[in-house]
Amino acid sequence: MNAGTLSRGIVLFAHGARDGRWAEPFERLADKLRALAGPDTAVSLAFLELMTPDLPAAVAAQVAAGCTSITVVPVFFGQGGHVRRDLPLALDACRAAHPGVQIRHAVPVGEDDAVLDALASYCLRQLGSLG
Amino acid sequence: MNAGTLSRGIVLFAHGARDGRWAEPFERLADKLRALAGPDTAVSLAFLELMTPDLPAAVAAQVAAGCTSITVVPVFFGQGGHVRRDLPLALDACRAAHPGVQIRHAVPVGEDDAVLDALASYCLRQLGSLG
Repeated sequence: MNAGTLSRGIVLFAHGARDGRWAEPFERLADKLRALAGPDTAVSLAFLELMTPDLPAAVAAQVAAGCTSITVVPVFFGQGGHVRRDLPLALDACRAAHPGVQIRHAVPVGEDDAVLDALASYCLRQLGSLG
Repeated sequence: MNAGTLSRGIVLFAHGARDGRWAEPFERLADKLRALAGPDTAVSLAFLELMTPDLPAAVAAQVAAGCTSITVVPVFFGQGGHVRRDLPLALDACRAAHPGVQIRHAVPVGEDDAVLDALASYCLRQLGSLG
């Protein structure tokens, strides 16, 4: 991130896994989002467990880079304990650490109808395309 | 499922969670896929853990309903141990139990570029739309 030119940030919050290759789709997603959001928007990944950075570290890095408004998007399909319980606790810690920064969160990606449509289309294509 | 009219099936393989509400997006996805795939295609959910049915039970139900070709789609973003290790073991068990049925599997939904595009679009919309 380029300190001084950033005003807003988006943090993609994902579960994390032991296998480093697990994060590859999230890195591709972050790259796509950087291209869409433009140079004044910081885009970071954060993980609940097993990978770094965690959410407080990712938010702190964006604040240090100049972001005054940060949006956290849970890259989870469903709303289980991680989204309903762990995420709010982490958000509370972030807001307490950065009282002058607006820190918002979205509903998980799996709630979005267009995302579900893309998933359904992918599934349908698999019926015809596998050997 | 309506025995006798089904020839192929698709099983959406997801992680599972303790909170029953977690499965709601997967149920919506299955409904969308049923509408797209038509009445000759069985669409089922299966879970790795914490929810039922598991993959062998979901596959057995589709076989009992008449499916002779079954496609398993991992509804996971990343390829960690669940997709690289647990899923192949479950698929092996399914193939051993139903040697006359073609059981294929797709790469996880998170590998699909159109899915990632839909995720990136959702994330971008969150930058502008939250209060």
